[in-house]
Amino acid sequence: MIKATIAGGTGYTAGELLRILLNHPLVEIESVISATSVGMQVAEMHRDLLGETDLKFSDKIGNPDVIFLCLGHGLSRAFLEENDVTSTCKIIDLGNDFRNNLVFGNREFVFGLCELNRDKIRTTNSIANPGCFSTTIMLALLPLASMNKLFDDIHVHAITGSTGAGKRPVDTTHFSYRDNNISVYKPFSHQHLEEIAKTLTSAGSKDLPPINFVPMRGDFARGIFASVYTKWDNSMSESEVIDYYKEYYKDSPFVFVSDSPISLKEVVNTNKALIHIEFHNGYIHLTSITDNLVKGASGQAVQNMNLMFGLDETLGLKLKGSAF
Amino acid sequence: MIKATIAGGTGYTAGELLRILLNHPLVEIESVISATSVGMQVAEMHRDLLGETDLKFSDKIGNPDVIFLCLGHGLSRAFLEENDVTSTCKIIDLGNDFRNNLVFGNREFVFGLCELNRDKIRTTNSIANPGCFSTTIMLALLPLASMNKLFDDIHVHAITGSTGAGKRPVDTTHFSYRDNNISVYKPFSHQHLEEIAKTLTSAGSKDLPPINFVPMRGDFARGIFASVYTKWDNSMSESEVIDYYKEYYKDSPFVFVSDSPISLKEVVNTNKALIHIEFHNGYIHLTSITDNLVKGASGQAVQNMNLMFGLDETLGLKLKGSAF
Amino acid sequence: MIKATIAGGTGYTAGELLRILLNHPLVEIESVISATSVGMQVAEMHRDLLGETDLKFSDKIGNPDVIFLCLGHGLSRAFLEENDVTSTCKIIDLGNDFRNNLVFGNREFVFGLCELNRDKIRTTNSIANPGCFSTTIMLALLPLASMNKLFDDIHVHAITGSTGAGKRPVDTTHFSYRDNNISVYKPFSHQHLEEIAKTLTSAGSKDLPPINFVPMRGDFARGIFASVYTKWDNSMSESEVIDYYKEYYKDSPFVFVSDSPISLKEVVNTNKALIHIEFHNGYIHLTSITDNLVKGASGQAVQNMNLMFGLDETLGLKLKGSAF
Amino acid sequence: MIKATIAGGTGYTAGELLRILLNHPLVEIESVISATSVGMQVAEMHRDLLGETDLKFSDKIGNPDVIFLCLGHGLSRAFLEENDVTSTCKIIDLGNDFRNNLVFGNREFVFGLCELNRDKIRTTNSIANPGCFSTTIMLALLPLASMNKLFDDIHVHAITGSTGAGKRPVDTTHFSYRDNNISVYKPFSHQHLEEIAKTLTSAGSKDLPPINFVPMRGDFARGIFASVYTKWDNSMSESEVIDYYKEYYKDSPFVFVSDSPISLKEVVNTNKALIHIEFHNGYIHLTSITDNLVKGASGQAVQNMNLMFGLDETLGLKLKGSAF
Repeated sequence: MIKATIAGGTGYTAGELLRILLNHPLVEIESVISATSVGMQVAEMHRDLLGETDLKFSDKIGNPDVIFLCLGHGLSRAFLEENDVTSTCKIIDLGNDFRNNLVFGNREFVFGLCELNRDKIRTTNSIANPGCFSTTIMLALLPLASMNKLFDDIHVHAITGSTGAGKRPVDTTHFSYRDNNISVYKPFSHQHLEEIAKTLTSAGSKDLPPINFVPMRGDFARGIFASVYTKWDNSMSESEVIDYYKEYYKDSPFVFVSDSPISLKEVVNTNKALIHIEFHNGYIHLTSITDNLVKGASGQAVQNMNLMFGLDETLGLKLKGSAF
Repeated sequence: MIKATIAGGTGYTAGELLRILLNHPLVEIESVISATSVGMQVAEMHRDLLGETDLKFSDKIGNPDVIFLCLGHGLSRAFLEENDVTSTCKIIDLGNDFRNNLVFGNREFVFGLCELNRDKIRTTNSIANPGCFSTTIMLALLPLASMNKLFDDIHVHAITGSTGAGKRPVDTTHFSYRDNNISVYKPFSHQHLEEIAKTLTSAGSKDLPPINFVPMRGDFARGIFASVYTKWDNSMSESEVIDYYKEYYKDSPFVFVSDSPISLKEVVNTNKALIHIEFHNGYIHLTSITDNLVKGASGQAVQNMNLMFGLDETLGLKLKGSAF
Repeated sequence: MIKATIAGGTGYTAGELLRILLNHPLVEIESVISATSVGMQVAEMHRDLLGETDLKFSDKIGNPDVIFLCLGHGLSRAFLEENDVTSTCKIIDLGNDFRNNLVFGNREFVFGLCELNRDKIRTTNSIANPGCFSTTIMLALLPLASMNKLFDDIHVHAITGSTGAGKRPVDTTHFSYRDNNISVYKPFSHQHLEEIAKTLTSAGSKDLPPINFVPMRGDFARGIFASVYTKWDNSMSESEVIDYYKEYYKDSPFVFVSDSPISLKEVVNTNKALIHIEFHNGYIHLTSITDNLVKGASGQAVQNMNLMFGLDETLGLKLKGSAF
Repeated sequence: MIKATIAGGTGYTAGELLRILLNHPLVEIESVISATSVGMQVAEMHRDLLGETDLKFSDKIGNPDVIFLCLGHGLSRAFLEENDVTSTCKIIDLGNDFRNNLVFGNREFVFGLCELNRDKIRTTNSIANPGCFSTTIMLALLPLASMNKLFDDIHVHAITGSTGAGKRPVDTTHFSYRDNNISVYKPFSHQHLEEIAKTLTSAGSKDLPPINFVPMRGDFARGIFASVYTKWDNSMSESEVIDYYKEYYKDSPFVFVSDSPISLKEVVNTNKALIHIEFHNGYIHLTSITDNLVKGASGQAVQNMNLMFGLDETLGLKLKGSAF
């Protein structure tokens, strides 16, 4: 059994990680760390876990084989500086501390996009888990990047569920505000742009064009729907591109190309990503969907863990979608 | 023109009052008080008012003909003690400070349920505006109380929108929690029970039986749907009771008896209350709906103001429903 | 491997059954029957199954070990009359055809409430799977029935998600109608009342009092929240009753008593039921929650299948909740 | 009083028109036509109108001063061919029959975008009322078109409420499908593109560049949120453009430029449009919001009526927003 510790145990990604790991056949939870809730039942905080665990929050790391950092952006480095994580313990950081700066002490982090870096992930001991918007957008564009077919501005609108905004209640996550409402935030300047650009470049895109990214707040709790388009050079037909995508992702057990248009709930509560491709007016138009808490965070983290420990990538991740 | 001041100008009921009063043909806003936001544009806070007012928050009462207290429960008494409201200025308190304790200094408050106390409201200078749950439940039961037909336990489930919980974001108004969720709070012990019981008694119910009230948090923003039943003595047929209700409310311009079953959105964004009546298994079953911010708060406050100033009760209150 | 056929393969409960069975370690799907969609990919209809199955709809039963009837209420008898289901094939009917009339030819159906009839289920070859409202309400009341403590009217309000209304789009499932709306339907007369009454009686309740049941349409897709109360004789304290419930359900792996108040999303997308108990004003008040498509339908059907085949009751049913 | 007849009286836009006209101080309803519901109370169909009208559906046009055609797209021509509308009766068509083909018999329709064609509207007797997406997008772009500053591809994502899809229940308006879901439809090919292009051209845009428009289905009932951007030539600063927009719309009583970012509910249930402008990365980014049933349909129709009859443009249209 793999012994796993979760740091930052009270937040949304930690809760989702627990939901997944408690059913993972080869993992046992070593410790769920929360400095502020030591001694409290984990299921009192993540209340849907009632009946599934008797774990209590702790302030000890224990002696895990892997530690998941669910600390909030910018807090992972401090945690690693202040705590003694043994060099043999693998680290998977769900924050953004190492995504664009992959070194910490002796550790070299790998950007944990399984579909691009599967082999590197298998041999590293430190993972920077990709962001939720990033994952959804990168999966739509990776195959084009691999063919170096991104040559003109990339246009992205992506709408996210409220769980992406974290657990602390604020004005823009107030139900009275958000119910039946839509808004834009951080247009053209979202912090995920950097990791997206680096990843597409490393996937084969030379002289990556600008990515114009307008993130939107949706009035739902889970999921990201991205609509992406860019000019197409007509070097391949629509069906050839679709075939290329299917081939590109044929060994990726969670990424599928849909021949029909997609809607967000087709992936909610699963670790899947769906992509749909159409040609229009000289553009290639891609829609891409993920569950921000699963494939966009904790599910992908477990997928990375599986790879790091030499396990089947899908172990513990064959999740029943909610569909509705 | 009636000069109106609003104290507690940043909250939900103040915002709704502004939405109504800005279109009221005989009212001008004297001052919108907010100690914490002095000088800020009102439309920066209540953002849907952009283009409709240039008012700024103030810390002055001014010299109004009427002051609306939108201060949050328990803060109205303190406000009146600390501020100089002239004795000729009418007061309408939207909090619960005076509902069950109608005296303050020389002022005697009238419980502002127009459908019961219309005549008293016309001549008073101080109104305790009823609560939102209270209004919805009392309107369902008033005619039975008037006939003294409440003789066995009254059973009430009522589900409320999130705006009833106020503006400050907390865990139970977090969108991620509340979206697609249902819960119960304060079962059998909601603070509105006292004003409901007093009102039904004053309407004619002797030896009022217990009211078993289970409030529920709904995953919508506006409105209250109440389902109420109690044993029926079969002294009148269903259609006789329906006729009695229609007669009882025939001079109440906002309360209607629906011959068909009702759904909440039939009143949302209006000052109306709808009631539907069915007999089943020896019970009379009433469903009753209001918009908690309009008939359940600010609309009813304006209705009270209209009566206090000798105006047509409906002035400024013929609101287009949102319906969807 | 257990070979399973699903009749009525295009509806909501069939879709949910597929989501569960495709991940069940000991089941393989023999056939998914839909007369109207023969030859169509199952994942074209239940689109969240893309990438998880290549099954196509068929009009053949095949040679299954178990057949699930997901046909819509009133259609199961006709199906069995018109089709040849071998006598060795187990039947699990998700409709209401056999719940109150348990005989069909040589088969004697068992009412498939695992928590009450576990032993009978283990030895029968025919199951009438309980209704979704029924399950939620019965689980709240079973322990009281077992003590014969139901002596006064039982008061029930229960609010259901839209998936309970089935797949065919109608006025009351139109998004424009239902979004942010609440309504009551079939008050005091819902068709599940009969199976609830029979079950409570068979559980030990003598002279069962009337059950006053007001079903409500909620503006969410999944789940049922029931609020139930009845007079209490004070023979046991609140904590004694809670302990009795915990003991009663201690061998039921999906039913839990929550010490804190519950909210619907704590069980959505799981096979769990949660119950919370409080005493108020001489009443015992129970809240009870399930996912109508899982514990209220397809999950419970699989739980029954597991029992019928001598398997661990939880096999394939340790589902990650959606929580949000 | 202006006598108004509504043809196609059972649909969503007719209902909204009734909600507005019943409170309009200078309109009386002559007839509400529905071939299929003759004799039925209008308030039985548009149930929120209970208590506000005793009108019944009719199959007679009567003798109106204005007729509103709410017939569904493509049915207005046939209606005018089959029915005798006197030449002195003004026509306002809410369908799309005349938007791109403005002639019918002797009548020459004016495209009823008040902000562009105010003067022509004042003198015509026939109006083609703009579409909801069109209105929202055109208002964002009109000032740029007037300066001929549209020189590079225009990028539009706009997300609409379910009422835009009409009243007939279909799969994509089923609550179980749409709740918490997002999808794209008719990408790059929506039928409103033609009227948008014609209007921008007539407003002053020469050699209008392509408009790439991705419409999205939102999980809310009312409103359209459009996010629009296009390359900017830097001939004016951000604040100069904002000032130009404010000047451009200074005589348009329902269009406002917001200095802060906007969210959809700031206009829901009103006839307002809000626009917010930011410069990013060489692009001008505009967000624009309307209520699809009000400014995007029936409110704009009444605004046109007001202009056609020489009334104050805002008469009957100072609507309280729902805000939540």
